[in-house]
Order: sequence, then structure tokens, then C-alpha cells
Amino acid sequence: MRRSAIREILKHLQKPGMISFAGGLPAPETFPVNDLKEITLEILEKNGPDGLQYGSTEGDPNLRKMLVSRHNEQGLNIGIDNLIITTGSQQGLDLIARIFLDPGDYVLCGLPSYLGGLNAFSVYGARLKGITLDENGMKPDELEDTIFTLKELGKKIKFIYVIPDFQNPAGITLPNSRRVKIIEIADKYDLLIVEDCPYREVRFEGESQKLMNELDTTGRVITLCTFSKILSPGFRIGWVIGHPELLDRIVMAKQTADLCTSPFLQKIIALYIEKGLLDKNLKKTIDLYRKRRTHMINCFMKYMPDKVTWTTPQGGLFLFVTLPVNLDADIIFKESLEKNVAFVSGSTFFCNNSGHNTMRLNFSYSNNDEIELGVKKLAEVITQEQTKK
Amino acid sequence: MRRSAIREILKHLQKPGMISFAGGLPAPETFPVNDLKEITLEILEKNGPDGLQYGSTEGDPNLRKMLVSRHNEQGLNIGIDNLIITTGSQQGLDLIARIFLDPGDYVLCGLPSYLGGLNAFSVYGARLKGITLDENGMKPDELEDTIFTLKELGKKIKFIYVIPDFQNPAGITLPNSRRVKIIEIADKYDLLIVEDCPYREVRFEGESQKLMNELDTTGRVITLCTFSKILSPGFRIGWVIGHPELLDRIVMAKQTADLCTSPFLQKIIALYIEKGLLDKNLKKTIDLYRKRRTHMINCFMKYMPDKVTWTTPQGGLFLFVTLPVNLDADIIFKESLEKNVAFVSGSTFFCNNSGHNTMRLNFSYSNNDEIELGVKKLAEVITQEQTKK
Repeated sequence: MRRSAIREILKHLQKPGMISFAGGLPAPETFPVNDLKEITLEILEKNGPDGLQYGSTEGDPNLRKMLVSRHNEQGLNIGIDNLIITTGSQQGLDLIARIFLDPGDYVLCGLPSYLGGLNAFSVYGARLKGITLDENGMKPDELEDTIFTLKELGKKIKFIYVIPDFQNPAGITLPNSRRVKIIEIADKYDLLIVEDCPYREVRFEGESQKLMNELDTTGRVITLCTFSKILSPGFRIGWVIGHPELLDRIVMAKQTADLCTSPFLQKIIALYIEKGLLDKNLKKTIDLYRKRRTHMINCFMKYMPDKVTWTTPQGGLFLFVTLPVNLDADIIFKESLEKNVAFVSGSTFFCNNSGHNTMRLNFSYSNNDEIELGVKKLAEVITQEQTKK
Repeated sequence: MRRSAIREILKHLQKPGMISFAGGLPAPETFPVNDLKEITLEILEKNGPDGLQYGSTEGDPNLRKMLVSRHNEQGLNIGIDNLIITTGSQQGLDLIARIFLDPGDYVLCGLPSYLGGLNAFSVYGARLKGITLDENGMKPDELEDTIFTLKELGKKIKFIYVIPDFQNPAGITLPNSRRVKIIEIADKYDLLIVEDCPYREVRFEGESQKLMNELDTTGRVITLCTFSKILSPGFRIGWVIGHPELLDRIVMAKQTADLCTSPFLQKIIALYIEKGLLDKNLKKTIDLYRKRRTHMINCFMKYMPDKVTWTTPQGGLFLFVTLPVNLDADIIFKESLEKNVAFVSGSTFFCNNSGHNTMRLNFSYSNNDEIELGVKKLAEVITQEQTKK
């Protein structure tokens, strides 16, 4: 078990004056402090002690109903038995890993992929096999070839881990057609798909693609969602959508993991949604992050030396940057930290230890001035490294 | 993995008119709803968005400091590096099991013991070996004999699981002398001790015994505490005390389990303690539970047939009842459920499937009238069963 590289970096970031493109932190100005004051008072007045007692492991029935009807409106045909609450979607990843993974089992994931997911799988002894992403995400041909080869070698594959929308760290979105292809492959080889959707609702432009859970007809997709990027990560509330039999196993595992997720916080969120505040606030969050994304890309165009390229995500929180192959992002990282600019080296997210010339930059947390100054300094460090070669 | 028996029962209990001695629920009237309204407003006003952002995996620094100085005042010499926050103490049990247990490892526990602990260990493939309790708790001679025998057989023992104060379900407290003996045995055979203390501060009378963590000098005791029984289980906030190296491993495991515990709730509790409200409210809780404990025992003396015996706990939430050996608590349970009275069959808590003539009764949740009516009906069921024999 290795300490999460990101968490370690987060400690460095407490230095005053640091411009951080490192974490996946939402902008604090998107947190609806005043609305939450009213809502919390109302919950304590109306529900009194209810939210302060133990709650059911499956989650607050009212919040589950709200989320189910929200999904129904968005086109996903599920009922209350298809949805449970977790303590953040990180707990969803952990419980799924706990239930399905035996030491030596393979998990197929994107090259690169969210580190917190990869770590959750590794902890239970899984082996990770990465699949290259192109501009449309995970490559189906390579996915099928890899499955075929591993099966030939007698290896046990348990699931495919996908972040379909504004992938962390690559910022890439799978088009519907490719989602269908990946589901077909999973079907052919009888694999589960773990669909991780923390950024899905943070879309700046373009058409929303369907949830893989909606495209699947065989009950093999488990979908993870969270309020962390659309309301507040400090609430630690996520939810899992899937076949009731799969959810039943997750609920059993959750009982020994933490008994239940805070009913107090669940009731606050349920009332917040009921009042129509979630979508209103989310709209403002999306507007802010769109501006910051565009500003960061403009600064890249203005300051970055030639041969540095980057993704232009249609949503989410991250840009992914590719340096010329002879540059090492770890060295850039150390030097830019000294200039009070932080990011995460892309190699952190590659389970095959590749990607040493890549970087992940968060654009949700810093304001426009910080983005401009940070990108400028970063560009200086990169230019300086390039001239050394 | 088996579904927790208690959780299953909790579902039955939603029947209207049910008198429940089953769960380990605090009395809702002890939840300080009005104080929490003010505190929550103050947190949202003062700290603004801080509590709504991600927090550190170790826990809110302010809450950790508060807890450390509270423990210092109570005689335990620890620093900030000896204490981390968990999502309820159930998460502490889960993470400890995850870190230390390999399939086939032995855990030594009381006969009986808290089911949520036993399940957390079993999930990771541990084998449970029960040690008989007498009126002073876990028997040291049997403990040492068992360790010796298991070691002779080449078995790997990882830790001793102890609930020293008002043990769940037995209601028994280990005197200091026996705590010292158990530590000496752990020392001799180089075992860890997991000291689970959810009820410790809910003491009605008698002298507080020392934490095993205080008596130990070798850093082999990991102590689990929680706000569930002294403030609110709906907050899901616990803490773990131990050697920094052990805590560092727990923190690493917690990163993949849920990243962090809600900083919002941690800040609320920290301010609640800072204002001196915790101890004030706890005093009222203790007064209420003492009355209910005494009332339940009085009702037992009034209604129970001969040959039924029970513990008289000096604190906590539970009485443990022993029926004549020819009676089966599972049958009593089914019949009393039909009369709208619920409890938990004691055998649930015995890892060796014994204790079929025992029952656990909670006295914190029901009011005096419910306690009297419930005990009366239960006594009728037991009397009726006895006459059948």
C-alpha cells in the first residue's frame, strides 16, 4: 500500500503564496454557504433528532427517491432498489474492490486513470492492466486484444474501470458509440464495468452522452456518482447505481465498513435538491469552471513553448498536458514548486509507469489571476528545461 | 460475509407499537438539537466554505487537538500524532482489520463480543477464538492458555479484541488489575490489543478504570472511541488513539476507503466541545440512562420468573440476561416479536455459536413506560416457555 501521491502533495500546498493546479478541489466560492444555513436550520427544526440517530445502511429513503427521480428525468430507467448512498464515491470504489477482487485478479483501466481508483483496487491485491486512450477515450480494439491475451494466459479479469465523462486526468469524454462498443466487449467476455462519474454533470458545452448504465441491458454496469464536484466534497456523500443483487452485496460490505453514511448530511442534501437549489447552483459552478478552463487554455496558448500540447475538455476539472518526450514532468514539478506553482505529474496516473512527459492541471480551484501567473511561471520552467536539452 | 443480524432486526422494528430493546440506539431526547442549530450556523458563518471543502485524511486539526487535550485531562499522555479521526469507530475496526488481518489469522475476543467488530474481522478472513468472560470480563488464564495452544498449533494470532468498559453485549467492566494482566499477556506473546471504547464515558456510578492505552508502555494498544453514544451517531465521527506508526498505516488505508471524514461535521463537533457543551449534555445523558437502567432492573425483579438472571452494568447501554439452560432465546425472540417486544438473541454475539439461553437488552432507547410494558410482556413469554418444558 503506497501513500497517495496527491495527498502528499496537498501537504506541500499549504505553503503561503502557492498556486495549486494539483488537487481536484472545487472552487470554494461555489459552495452555497447561505442556502445551507437555511436548509440546516430547517432540517434541525422539522426533523429534529431524526438526522442525528443511526440511519439505514442503504441510505436515507428520501434522498434515494430524489436521486432516482432525477436520474429518471435524465433518461435512466431505475427504481429505488437500484440506488444506494455511500460515504463519497471513494467508498463506492473501495466496497466494489472489496467485494469483487481477489489477490491476483486483473482490473482493466485507462492509461491514465484516477489514482484513488487504482489505489483502491491495488489495496485488495488486484493487478492493473492499462488500456491506451485516444482522443475518444479507451480504445476498444486494444481493450479486446488485452482481454483475449490475459484470458489465454489463464488470468482472471474482474472488471473494466471507466471514467466516461471528462476523464480524470485526461479530460477526455467517451462518445456514445464507443460506450456501446465497450459494453459489447464486456458482454462478450462476461465482465463487469465500473463506471465512475464524478464530473458528468459539470459539462460546459457539447451534448451529454448517455450513462453506460443506460446503454447496458444486462445489468453489468455499476455506476458511481458523488456530490463532491456538484455541491460539496466536505459532505462526503456519493451514490451507487446498479443491479439490486450487486447493491445488496455492497450494502453488506458497507455494514462492516461504517454502518451508514451520516443521515444528517443526507437529509440536508435531500432538502437542498427538493428546493431546486442543486441545479441552480450547479449552473453557476459550470459557468465559473467554463470560464476558468477557457482562461487556462488561453494562457497556455499565450505562454507555452512550442511542442507542448494539451487537451480541451468539454467539462470537468482537469487539463492534461503533454510535454516533448525528452522532458520529465517530475523534474518540472520540483522546479515549479520552488516557484510556488504545483500540479500533478501525469505518470502518477499511469499504472504501467509511463507518461513521464505528462502533467495534470486543475482549473477549478484557482482564480483567473492565479491561473495566468501559474501558467506563465510553469511555461518559464518548461522553456528553461527545454533549453538545457 | 453474512448480513448483520442486528441490522436485519432493525428493519422489523419499524412496525408501529414495537417496543425495541434490540438496537444500540441512543435516546433521541439526548441529541442537543437546539445547541447544534446555533453551532452549525456559527460554523457556516465563521468558517464559511472551509468545512465544505475536502479535509485532511487524519482529521480536522482543531478537533484532534480538542480530543488530545480532553484525553490529557483524563490522564492519558498523548500528542496530536497519537490521534486520528475516523468515519465512526466502525471504520476504525474495519481499517484495523484491513491492515493487520490476513486470511486464516486468529483474533481473540470475548465470549460474547460486539457483532460489528466480529463481522469486520471475519470479512478479512480472520478466525475468531472466543475467551470466556466472568463477572470481571475476559479471563486472563483462559486467554493465555488459548494463545499458548494456538501458537503450539502454529497458528498466527494478530490481536486481542477487548471492550473494557460496559462491554457490548455483556455490560461487564474490566477492573484495572485485569487490564494490566491482559496487557502483560499481549506483551509476552507480542500481540496487539484493540481496545474498543464506545461506552466508556457513559458511566453511571463507580470509579472510572484506566484506558488500557494508558496502562500499556509498549505501544501495542490501539484505542477506538466515538461520538455516537455521547453526542450523535448520525454524525459518524469516531477517533483512534495509538502509536504514530500504526496510525500512519490506518491513515493510508483510510485514503482509499473514503479520503476523509466530513470536515463540516468535525468542525461542528470541535466548536461544540470548545463551548463546553459536550460534557454538560453528557451529564444529562448519563442521568437519563442511569434511571432507565435502574428502572429496567426493577422491572426485571418485579416480573421475571425465577432462574432468570441479568448483569447490572455500571454504565453503557445494555443488560445481558441469562435464561435457564433449557430455554432457547431464539424461540423467545420470535414469540416476543409477535407481542411487539424486540431484543437481540445473545448467541448472535458468541463466535463459537454458544449462548443460546442469553439475550441482550438495550435500556437507553425506550422510555420508562415502554421499559415496564416490554419487560412485563417478555417475562410472560419466558414464563410461558418455561411451563412448556
